Amino acid sequence: MNVLDHGYLTEVEHWGSDERIIEAARMSTSGSFRGWDTDSRLLSYLWTHKHHTPFEMAGLVVEIQAPIFVAREWMRHRTQSYNELSGRYVELPDLYYIPSIERLMAGKQGVKNKQGSEEGFTSWFADLLRSRFQLATEEAREEYEDFLRMGVSRELARLIIPVNQYTRFRASANLRNWLGFLSLRLDAGAQWEMKQYAEAVAVVIKERFPRTYALFEEGQCSST
Amino acid sequence: MNVLDHGYLTEVEHWGSDERIIEAARMSTSGSFRGWDTDSRLLSYLWTHKHHTPFEMAGLVVEIQAPIFVAREWMRHRTQSYNELSGRYVELPDLYYIPSIERLMAGKQGVKNKQGSEEGFTSWFADLLRSRFQLATEEAREEYEDFLRMGVSRELARLIIPVNQYTRFRASANLRNWLGFLSLRLDAGAQWEMKQYAEAVAVVIKERFPRTYALFEEGQCSST
Amino acid sequence: MNVLDHGYLTEVEHWGSDERIIEAARMSTSGSFRGWDTDSRLLSYLWTHKHHTPFEMAGLVVEIQAPIFVAREWMRHRTQSYNELSGRYVELPDLYYIPSIERLMAGKQGVKNKQGSEEGFTSWFADLLRSRFQLATEEAREEYEDFLRMGVSRELARLIIPVNQYTRFRASANLRNWLGFLSLRLDAGAQWEMKQYAEAVAVVIKERFPRTYALFEEGQCSST
Amino acid sequence: MNVLDHGYLTEVEHWGSDERIIEAARMSTSGSFRGWDTDSRLLSYLWTHKHHTPFEMAGLVVEIQAPIFVAREWMRHRTQSYNELSGRYVELPDLYYIPSIERLMAGKQGVKNKQGSEEGFTSWFADLLRSRFQLATEEAREEYEDFLRMGVSRELARLIIPVNQYTRFRASANLRNWLGFLSLRLDAGAQWEMKQYAEAVAVVIKERFPRTYALFEEGQCSST
Repeated sequence: MNVLDHGYLTEVEHWGSDERIIEAARMSTSGSFRGWDTDSRLLSYLWTHKHHTPFEMAGLVVEIQAPIFVAREWMRHRTQSYNELSGRYVELPDLYYIPSIERLMAGKQGVKNKQGSEEGFTSWFADLLRSRFQLATEEAREEYEDFLRMGVSRELARLIIPVNQYTRFRASANLRNWLGFLSLRLDAGAQWEMKQYAEAVAVVIKERFPRTYALFEEGQCSST
Repeated sequence: MNVLDHGYLTEVEHWGSDERIIEAARMSTSGSFRGWDTDSRLLSYLWTHKHHTPFEMAGLVVEIQAPIFVAREWMRHRTQSYNELSGRYVELPDLYYIPSIERLMAGKQGVKNKQGSEEGFTSWFADLLRSRFQLATEEAREEYEDFLRMGVSRELARLIIPVNQYTRFRASANLRNWLGFLSLRLDAGAQWEMKQYAEAVAVVIKERFPRTYALFEEGQCSST
Repeated sequence: MNVLDHGYLTEVEHWGSDERIIEAARMSTSGSFRGWDTDSRLLSYLWTHKHHTPFEMAGLVVEIQAPIFVAREWMRHRTQSYNELSGRYVELPDLYYIPSIERLMAGKQGVKNKQGSEEGFTSWFADLLRSRFQLATEEAREEYEDFLRMGVSRELARLIIPVNQYTRFRASANLRNWLGFLSLRLDAGAQWEMKQYAEAVAVVIKERFPRTYALFEEGQCSST
Repeated sequence: MNVLDHGYLTEVEHWGSDERIIEAARMSTSGSFRGWDTDSRLLSYLWTHKHHTPFEMAGLVVEIQAPIFVAREWMRHRTQSYNELSGRYVELPDLYYIPSIERLMAGKQGVKNKQGSEEGFTSWFADLLRSRFQLATEEAREEYEDFLRMGVSRELARLIIPVNQYTRFRASANLRNWLGFLSLRLDAGAQWEMKQYAEAVAVVIKERFPRTYALFEEGQCSST
């Protein structure tokens, strides 16, 4: 799945299923899965009464290409496992996130929402901003490559690399923790770029765990 | 797999593989799996240099039937996910661990090893002990069932249930954490009964992640 | 603080404070504590908008004496640190939880609430039940001591010890996780004995972190 | 404590002590602290035999000012709690890490050690490099401030900010996890800048938990 201008999110692997969650929950009463006619109510009960441990019995591994500022927010989630590209081992890829005209038109500093952006720039002005983002990024990249050519170590040359640099990593978590991730990163307060990745995660989870995701989605709506 | 007199351990599901671990490790250098001719050295390097995060990209879910005193030790591992039978929801199964004659012959209080047992009882004496374990357990069970018949709630009736009562649970963890579990629970200092379950876990891991397990086994030997 | 017939909960140590939580939250805006006139609103905002990380900057260590069945539930909380008495190292204390007449009068199996108890026994019948709990416990204890006298190892002799045996442990967690513990263990669905300990934890937290606890209490009420 | 050109590390608070660790360990045998004449051996035993849970009963909160690339590595430690300055809420401070002449002289790409630097540049060349680091940083900063002046939101303007930007955060962890942090970040393979912060953490731990730190230091040496 493509995300932003050069990013992506792909499923590496998943484990468990909606059925497995029911099976795990039934450990407490010594039972097993009985079919969704009766068990869709149980799944709903588990979710709405915050019996979250059965949702730890399923999970997902994804691979992500995202700008550093997105990866920074992502990795604040301490219940996931990560393996990331290292700018100490290899030259960083020549891939940088440049916001689109549309994003920039809506990229004025919010007044009421102090941490966010809001609409307000004309397309003409957004286009100008875009060129400047592009130029600043290119200059930083050129300097980086120059440093490498001069024999400066990768771990030092990267110091001037901006946070719109794309990085790449794998992330693994159980379903309970992915849903915790989504409830924060799909939130209205999340940065737009972060949200694009959260929505890509949601697509995968919806496909693999449709019944659980439906409950999550309901809960999100009712809590807003 | 049968463990002790009425216990078992079965695989519910596993995810990842030795190959996946290599793939995850290669995220740092932007590479991928190249075949075991070259990559068995990398796997070994990761393990011996304690680059443990790639081993978080694989994992295992098992179902266990074990006495409460084993479950108590097991669940001290806080990096696993658990769903367990609840004596508040259902009547506890009429299944109790009674040590074998052989186990009891080796069940004298250790003098040097203060937390363990050692050999010392005759088979005749061990047989006597066994009868007494059996009897004490039966009496507790009868009282429990009597309480239930009299209408005492399950959550109270269970108070007199001894810790050799079998319980049942599912446990899920990533491979890194399973190996951490094994390094403690396969140790010479672990209680014999706990060790039987750890060995059953080891059998599953050896089958699913043979190359990683081989490295773990080497490490265990050299560190002893 | 005494809990149940032979249990207790005492504070070993706490760290942080309501002020420290504000300071930590202000890291994000480069500010610091300004006095409760303005900052009580911020604390409330953090709590109600689920910005929970600042509440990780304070915490509490307690020592607990509680029956094994309570300790079992407690230690399912994987975000706490534990050090517990070991029945492999020392003889278990001759301390067992015997429910009071009042508790037993309300100890009939619930019909609507399948995991709980409800009122229903006369004091005369509760008294009878109490004697039987006492007797069953004493018999188990005697057998345990007999085993030890015969030289059976502590790790095996304890197998017939019932789960009303008192154990002792220290538990440490940050405030965010203590509040998570309370929200589950003060719940109407929690077993009465567990709840007594949760209430003792609440008393300590209320004393040490009064403003945070007040917000927690409000939230609990409004969510019920 | 000053670290690098504009960074610092200061203790906010610590809890527990070497004595408390002994007390916690003694929970298993129902004992308490007896004085260092006898207990220094126990502390050493705990550490060398990897009985790590008592070391979770003490801990440390610190405040750090460090470049983003250092913070990125730091926050990969998922057992710590963090609160960080947010470039979405406030303008980033005009503070950037520029390597010293000495650091740059030793900043040539390592050939044997692919992830590190080694000596190799003359002071004259290092001085030239330093000017270029400075210039590239200043240009990025100017562009950032220009964006802000034009009304671009902070969350977007920061995209061109390089990873030598200083950020500020608090980190809290228990002693076991701080020592895990140190064993990785004091390692010869760690980036020099990261190591400076790890050494500052070590100074605080050595002061607050001198006996534990001495054992840690011994272990580090013998394992190398």
